[in-house]
Amino acid sequence: ALTASMNFYSMVLVAIALVSAPLAAVAGDPDILTDFVVPTSLIGIPINITGDYFTYTSFRPVPLPTATFTLSKASMAEFPALNGQSVSYAKLRFPPGTVNPTHTHPRAAELLFLLEGTLSVGFIDTAGKLYTKDLVAGNMFVFPKGLVHYQSNQGSRPAMALSAFGSAAAGTVSVPVTVFGTEVDDVVLAKSFKTDVPTVQKLKAALTPPPKK
Amino acid sequence: ALTASMNFYSMVLVAIALVSAPLAAVAGDPDILTDFVVPTSLIGIPINITGDYFTYTSFRPVPLPTATFTLSKASMAEFPALNGQSVSYAKLRFPPGTVNPTHTHPRAAELLFLLEGTLSVGFIDTAGKLYTKDLVAGNMFVFPKGLVHYQSNQGSRPAMALSAFGSAAAGTVSVPVTVFGTEVDDVVLAKSFKTDVPTVQKLKAALTPPPKK
Amino acid sequence: ALTASMNFYSMVLVAIALVSAPLAAVAGDPDILTDFVVPTSLIGIPINITGDYFTYTSFRPVPLPTATFTLSKASMAEFPALNGQSVSYAKLRFPPGTVNPTHTHPRAAELLFLLEGTLSVGFIDTAGKLYTKDLVAGNMFVFPKGLVHYQSNQGSRPAMALSAFGSAAAGTVSVPVTVFGTEVDDVVLAKSFKTDVPTVQKLKAALTPPPKK
Amino acid sequence: ALTASMNFYSMVLVAIALVSAPLAAVAGDPDILTDFVVPTSLIGIPINITGDYFTYTSFRPVPLPTATFTLSKASMAEFPALNGQSVSYAKLRFPPGTVNPTHTHPRAAELLFLLEGTLSVGFIDTAGKLYTKDLVAGNMFVFPKGLVHYQSNQGSRPAMALSAFGSAAAGTVSVPVTVFGTEVDDVVLAKSFKTDVPTVQKLKAALTPPPKK
Amino acid sequence: ALTASMNFYSMVLVAIALVSAPLAAVAGDPDILTDFVVPTSLIGIPINITGDYFTYTSFRPVPLPTATFTLSKASMAEFPALNGQSVSYAKLRFPPGTVNPTHTHPRAAELLFLLEGTLSVGFIDTAGKLYTKDLVAGNMFVFPKGLVHYQSNQGSRPAMALSAFGSAAAGTVSVPVTVFGTEVDDVVLAKSFKTDVPTVQKLKAALTPPPKK
Amino acid sequence: ALTASMNFYSMVLVAIALVSAPLAAVAGDPDILTDFVVPTSLIGIPINITGDYFTYTSFRPVPLPTATFTLSKASMAEFPALNGQSVSYAKLRFPPGTVNPTHTHPRAAELLFLLEGTLSVGFIDTAGKLYTKDLVAGNMFVFPKGLVHYQSNQGSRPAMALSAFGSAAAGTVSVPVTVFGTEVDDVVLAKSFKTDVPTVQKLKAALTPPPKK
Repeated sequence: ALTASMNFYSMVLVAIALVSAPLAAVAGDPDILTDFVVPTSLIGIPINITGDYFTYTSFRPVPLPTATFTLSKASMAEFPALNGQSVSYAKLRFPPGTVNPTHTHPRAAELLFLLEGTLSVGFIDTAGKLYTKDLVAGNMFVFPKGLVHYQSNQGSRPAMALSAFGSAAAGTVSVPVTVFGTEVDDVVLAKSFKTDVPTVQKLKAALTPPPKK
Repeated sequence: ALTASMNFYSMVLVAIALVSAPLAAVAGDPDILTDFVVPTSLIGIPINITGDYFTYTSFRPVPLPTATFTLSKASMAEFPALNGQSVSYAKLRFPPGTVNPTHTHPRAAELLFLLEGTLSVGFIDTAGKLYTKDLVAGNMFVFPKGLVHYQSNQGSRPAMALSAFGSAAAGTVSVPVTVFGTEVDDVVLAKSFKTDVPTVQKLKAALTPPPKK
Repeated sequence: ALTASMNFYSMVLVAIALVSAPLAAVAGDPDILTDFVVPTSLIGIPINITGDYFTYTSFRPVPLPTATFTLSKASMAEFPALNGQSVSYAKLRFPPGTVNPTHTHPRAAELLFLLEGTLSVGFIDTAGKLYTKDLVAGNMFVFPKGLVHYQSNQGSRPAMALSAFGSAAAGTVSVPVTVFGTEVDDVVLAKSFKTDVPTVQKLKAALTPPPKK
Repeated sequence: ALTASMNFYSMVLVAIALVSAPLAAVAGDPDILTDFVVPTSLIGIPINITGDYFTYTSFRPVPLPTATFTLSKASMAEFPALNGQSVSYAKLRFPPGTVNPTHTHPRAAELLFLLEGTLSVGFIDTAGKLYTKDLVAGNMFVFPKGLVHYQSNQGSRPAMALSAFGSAAAGTVSVPVTVFGTEVDDVVLAKSFKTDVPTVQKLKAALTPPPKK
Repeated sequence: ALTASMNFYSMVLVAIALVSAPLAAVAGDPDILTDFVVPTSLIGIPINITGDYFTYTSFRPVPLPTATFTLSKASMAEFPALNGQSVSYAKLRFPPGTVNPTHTHPRAAELLFLLEGTLSVGFIDTAGKLYTKDLVAGNMFVFPKGLVHYQSNQGSRPAMALSAFGSAAAGTVSVPVTVFGTEVDDVVLAKSFKTDVPTVQKLKAALTPPPKK
Repeated sequence: ALTASMNFYSMVLVAIALVSAPLAAVAGDPDILTDFVVPTSLIGIPINITGDYFTYTSFRPVPLPTATFTLSKASMAEFPALNGQSVSYAKLRFPPGTVNPTHTHPRAAELLFLLEGTLSVGFIDTAGKLYTKDLVAGNMFVFPKGLVHYQSNQGSRPAMALSAFGSAAAGTVSVPVTVFGTEVDDVVLAKSFKTDVPTVQKLKAALTPPPKK
């Protein structure tokens, strides 16, 4: 019986491997062929989908006091019902004097709506031109797809913004951390930034995350 | 052995859950990366695909006599080979005096070709303008993507039409049944339609499907 | 000279006609091949695009008091910089007891974020199943692409929501106005809604916009 | 005045050139951002679009008697309202013993519905496997995107079919005419088909269209 | 225990069938919602992805001497990391006097860069017009999507080219082999090519692959 | 006459403005509805398109000696026939010790094929993980869509690579120049990079292009 089981075990492994191989192509932001996408999480057991599935409650309206810029996301990872719907949100809170560092979103434009406070924003196009604007509450600003941008609260009050993305998984590439917080070779970075290795190492020291213990 | 089996059982459950989680993103109408999509229906056993797989035979040419509007679909649900090919059909039969009620297709335009009889058709654009036409056999009419439309046989002979859709799964939202045949709150509907609750209840009574026994 | 001018005039007409014929295919929500889309509004005169172009200021934070549901849009029509960026916003204000009537968006899902108050929401899928939820401020709800949905403020305080769409031009089909506020034939509607012509006429009377003087 | 006119003339030329340069990217089958696409055919003069615009009447139900295979298309070129709607039709008539020669559609799958008669159909996938089927009236067959296919009426009665395409402009590449009816070099063709130049020239003689006088 | 196992076995089969049914829609070339696509090859065991996964080494720079046209592909089948990245390569080597026979790529345009030698290229558009060019090393030529094309080395030196495709799985339809190397009916081919059955049989004899022993 | 001319002039201006307004949506990388896109460059005068239109000759095979990294592009801007074909090339030349600085392509993945020499390459995913590889001639490496990447020739011989992109206009965002070579506020950059303003100013001094005289 054990032998039979083992054979069966192997067979299931192979079967799952075969089944999952084409799975590789799954991820995508296309129009879907169903009204919405239901997670098929256990052996074909039908899941009773209710209005709860389409509700996201982890975006809390009252932020805890903090002195640093904080960001709360509601993308497909946090809110699975967004799968196939090509839209997501992020909430951004800027205490006075804080900055959302230069970054790009590889898979969507960002449409920021300023709920409270004032915010200085900017992006740079692929021709190297900088576009900036000082926003007041109620203003909206669009950061085009894939371009480097930032926001900065230069006012004396906190600022809060809601950003919509035209993808369920826009992704974020932080330019400082991506470049200087990973182990890209010092010489490559020095040549890229036309600077010297000690400057690179100084930037790396500030941006490299501390080792997890 | 039972214990081992149970552990294995659990492991398989978990494995399938893991495998199926990313499955969520599957549904879509993109160009495919293969010539066609083959259902991988059993444990990796190769299926011998022949011309039969690409043939659909359930669209019968001789309709049974009936006094009501009837519709026969050949979309991905009925004809799996359409998967990834972005096209499907429906056959519509209108006895004299019948109507295909106001509805939308969320995922495609409809291109109706009138095979027999006469048919009055119409759709309303998002600016609220109505477009109508009285068709004769051999005419074609396009209902743009996502707009509310209807067809009505006001002649004395049966009408038959074939409709093509630019999606393998166009979907249908019947406006009467969707709005008045589900349990949307009476007050919401009364306010939506600027009418009173008794009128809503009268419409609901006519459109709510009888309970299944 | 007049003759020459006229010939030239005709020639320009023809030229513009030729140029504009293929223009027909323009509208679309594809990824763009440029960072953003610049309106080429006058004879090739380069427009100096600044941060202002990417800013929308007509979404005012302090609503005027009103007893009716009001909606403010920031889509491509109001905010041209959204062109090609696949995202847009709407702001919805619900005084107590008001409703955003049943409607669909033909070209995008809606991700509603409730800023203030409470809101009862619902949508119906293409299988005719109703999904509802009572939201509190800070909650988010996704209305899948192309499905009929509504929102209703059944609380005693005003509610305010921000909705993001995964298209720069989601479009709106109001189900009451589209069906009963246009001149669709009374008999077609009576048959569609399985009701009588007087009921249709009563609904039409309430929903038909008054003639413009 | 002449000088001024000429300058103005040149300026208009330049302007139109500038305007038309980006026009190059226009053609495409994307979802559109409007309900439908209206041709802007003359200097901004608004066109009154009615139901007629969405109607195509050139698909006549009664074919003239003919001994050759004939095909009638309703694609974007013949029926401009299809622009942006991703769907089109063709009607195919096969007198007994006729063939629709091997061909591909570069931009869509074809879903053929056999209205009358019998039809033998086939396609070859990119792995070189042939799929065939003998259809009877009422059957449907899908020819996947971009693959070589044919239809042949081997019966004694005429056959008539309607084909739907998931693109407003599917395009057709006739394999005999494309290869042997154009001036591709004889040696290239002989090597491609592993045959001799006289055989190529014989095929070319049969397939080259006669010179237009 | 055996009974239990069998039930479980059946249950797993059913489960995998259910899981794999929607898998059918997987294949596609859409933008992905992740940075890249990781194959999930065994029961959820995380795979350590390194730079090796993104490297393809089977495109060797020094070809073996051969008298026939040879082609080496780096598409998704050979290089899985291309999945979701919408790009692939092929390397083409033409000894003097050899030809890459007339063919189409159903899912992408081809951008050929001539590394060495000279090459005569051509394609035919859907209107039946032939476009040709004699290329020298360093030239580039684009074969538009889905059109029949060929390359021919009419020089005395070997030619080598690199071709890029805007899809991870462009596919290839060889026109000679697809048409004459499969078992398409002789009469269908004779009528398609307006020739006689013996000529068809002669072409088939040259192009049909020998039976595998 | 002048008045008439001016009126006409104004009218043409208005006409062109009207025509060009919808032009805004033009840019995109969709499948096209024609075989290829023909520039309509002058007043409707038909252009005789030949094989030359599909040929690009500005990618020279013999680079001039230079000590700096150089890049030659063949995208839609340089080679208009690529419009609508979703593919483009770049040629990269690395003298010993040179670097292609950290950058992203907002609209495509890059598939690099190393023609000569050795090359160290790397990219960072959105989770902040670095992937590196030392390539030898004949190797290929894929940089996924939208991620920061670089190449560095650490060998003693020149390296030459050809890169294919799955878009006709991939775009490039140089991370050093975009961030430090534009006038982004010093304080924003200092906070983004967790460094001091003098370090930012030092980096800016090296990366800001000299004023054009």
